[in-house]
Amino acid sequence: MDSTQSEWNPVHLADEVRNQITYNADGLVPAIAQEVETGEVLMMAWMNAESLDRTLAEGRMVYWSRSRQELWRKGDTSGDHQSVREAYYDCDGDTLLFKVVQHGGGACHTGERTCFYRSLGEAG
Amino acid sequence: MDSTQSEWNPVHLADEVRNQITYNADGLVPAIAQEVETGEVLMMAWMNAESLDRTLAEGRMVYWSRSRQELWRKGDTSGDHQSVREAYYDCDGDTLLFKVVQHGGGACHTGERTCFYRSLGEAG
Repeated sequence: MDSTQSEWNPVHLADEVRNQITYNADGLVPAIAQEVETGEVLMMAWMNAESLDRTLAEGRMVYWSRSRQELWRKGDTSGDHQSVREAYYDCDGDTLLFKVVQHGGGACHTGERTCFYRSLGEAG
Repeated sequence: MDSTQSEWNPVHLADEVRNQITYNADGLVPAIAQEVETGEVLMMAWMNAESLDRTLAEGRMVYWSRSRQELWRKGDTSGDHQSVREAYYDCDGDTLLFKVVQHGGGACHTGERTCFYRSLGEAG
């Protein structure tokens, strides 16, 4: 079974893990989405506790939209949803990393595959 | 010349690019460090305008330490510094991505190579 077909195992976080996730003053934690096949970093957005719970239950990325102040089940409008393959939290518990399969045209609302399509500089 | 040896070209951001970087209320922007060779996401930390300028000038990751409230020239204490190979900003200008060469033992203060060493779940 390849990584685009394998099934997500729904996760309900145990309290001892849940308590290690640190949310900011707005109740949000940054979530990085990385394409599992290529390693490309696609985007960074935010999750609150409910969006993290939904993401881990469904195996599909559900962010918190800071501009709309609502759950953002990515791809419901655009079709460009993201299936979760692996989920991690960092040493301080204040950043999340998800390895995903990107469906549709890409992660970025501009139509680009990744949101990080503009360079600031590079080694020669 | 391989990617561990190539030289960084010092960057001084033009105002039209500089003005596209959006800092939060604390004057900070999240910065993701990704290992250029493997694609592994190593860490996420924060930069202010001065740390971004120094990073792009030196080609070496300089963060802002929120706990110490000072510039954090990563590796000055640990030796685990990060050489920049590629730098990007995202569509909204509110997240930065750096592809780096990780020197020393790893990115994480725990001794792990990446800060994202703890799993929340995975596809079956």
